[in-house]
Amino acid sequence: MTERGLLIVLSGPSGVGKGTVRKAIFDNYNNDFDYSVSMTTRKQREGEVDGVDYYFRTKEQFEHLIREDGLLEYAEYVGNYYGTPLEYVNKTLDEGRDVFLEIEVQGALKVREKMPEGIFVFLSPPDLEELNSRIVNRGTDTHEMIEKRMTKAVEELKLIQYYDYVVENDTVNNAARKIRNIIESEHLKVTRNLKEFAEIIEEME
Amino acid sequence: MTERGLLIVLSGPSGVGKGTVRKAIFDNYNNDFDYSVSMTTRKQREGEVDGVDYYFRTKEQFEHLIREDGLLEYAEYVGNYYGTPLEYVNKTLDEGRDVFLEIEVQGALKVREKMPEGIFVFLSPPDLEELNSRIVNRGTDTHEMIEKRMTKAVEELKLIQYYDYVVENDTVNNAARKIRNIIESEHLKVTRNLKEFAEIIEEME
Repeated sequence: MTERGLLIVLSGPSGVGKGTVRKAIFDNYNNDFDYSVSMTTRKQREGEVDGVDYYFRTKEQFEHLIREDGLLEYAEYVGNYYGTPLEYVNKTLDEGRDVFLEIEVQGALKVREKMPEGIFVFLSPPDLEELNSRIVNRGTDTHEMIEKRMTKAVEELKLIQYYDYVVENDTVNNAARKIRNIIESEHLKVTRNLKEFAEIIEEME
Repeated sequence: MTERGLLIVLSGPSGVGKGTVRKAIFDNYNNDFDYSVSMTTRKQREGEVDGVDYYFRTKEQFEHLIREDGLLEYAEYVGNYYGTPLEYVNKTLDEGRDVFLEIEVQGALKVREKMPEGIFVFLSPPDLEELNSRIVNRGTDTHEMIEKRMTKAVEELKLIQYYDYVVENDTVNNAARKIRNIIESEHLKVTRNLKEFAEIIEEME
């Protein structure tokens, strides 16, 4: 039997740069894990590709999937749904491959309830000013939405205690490298290698 | 108050290459941690430096330190004592600096009893043939000692369950890099960063 893959969950406050760090991890490295594309009802931004950045769906389509129990987690956030299609995640983990999720904090907590064996990484802003300017400079949101996001960010920071690791997004490459190291190190945990070692010992005796 | 440093314990079967990997970690990287030099009564090998590779001491000197309770752990191994001077370890951890130990398996288990919060890394041989040839090619030991070491190695492999991580010594640089990553990742654990984040949240509110 193949050992089940690792579920890796990257999350953090809105505007902290989760998407950029996730892209760096997938662009800069040959990874042994697959990225699970989230589903959302929010407006597609310029440059975003359906099925790559997100699955962009209508509210009706999304709510249909909720009723069918087809989501690992979903959340309503600033008036839009975000969620993780369940089927792909389970199938990939069962095949022994790791799955990488990049999701909002609300969703991460729900995944933690269902799959506590996952590795939960919180991407944190270097400081408040930095977070604020990142949100403002995104340039596609109204002032009211920015206020909303800031309050949300403080609430989200308080959730850090439910994560396994915290990585400061000081530079994108640094954060990406650290997250890669965390995943590699998690695979070196004895609890994940006992079977293999039982075989080696048998061979030696 | 400074947060206490991490105790990192590198161990593994005799002849697996612990010393070489430890040297690579200290030669190839700028580390934030200090190496705790072990004390031994075994014969100094060619090229080994007192106070760098080991503190080479007589049996009488070593037993004096045992009576004084001055060792974090010690073990008798193939007729010789090996041990870790306690004072240096505690002082360094209290200053908030990490301490790196490279010790025999017997000793590592004793350290685990006293300091379960340490990070215990087991360096494993890629396979039996490889381990065998490394022990034989060391060239300074008798046939009887080699047999003794092999039996010991199997016993030691069985102790892997008491460790946190297992790193295969496929190549020295690979193993050194992985151990570096483990140490860095351990520092990113949320449990070790909650204080810092309480401050950030306070700042934001």
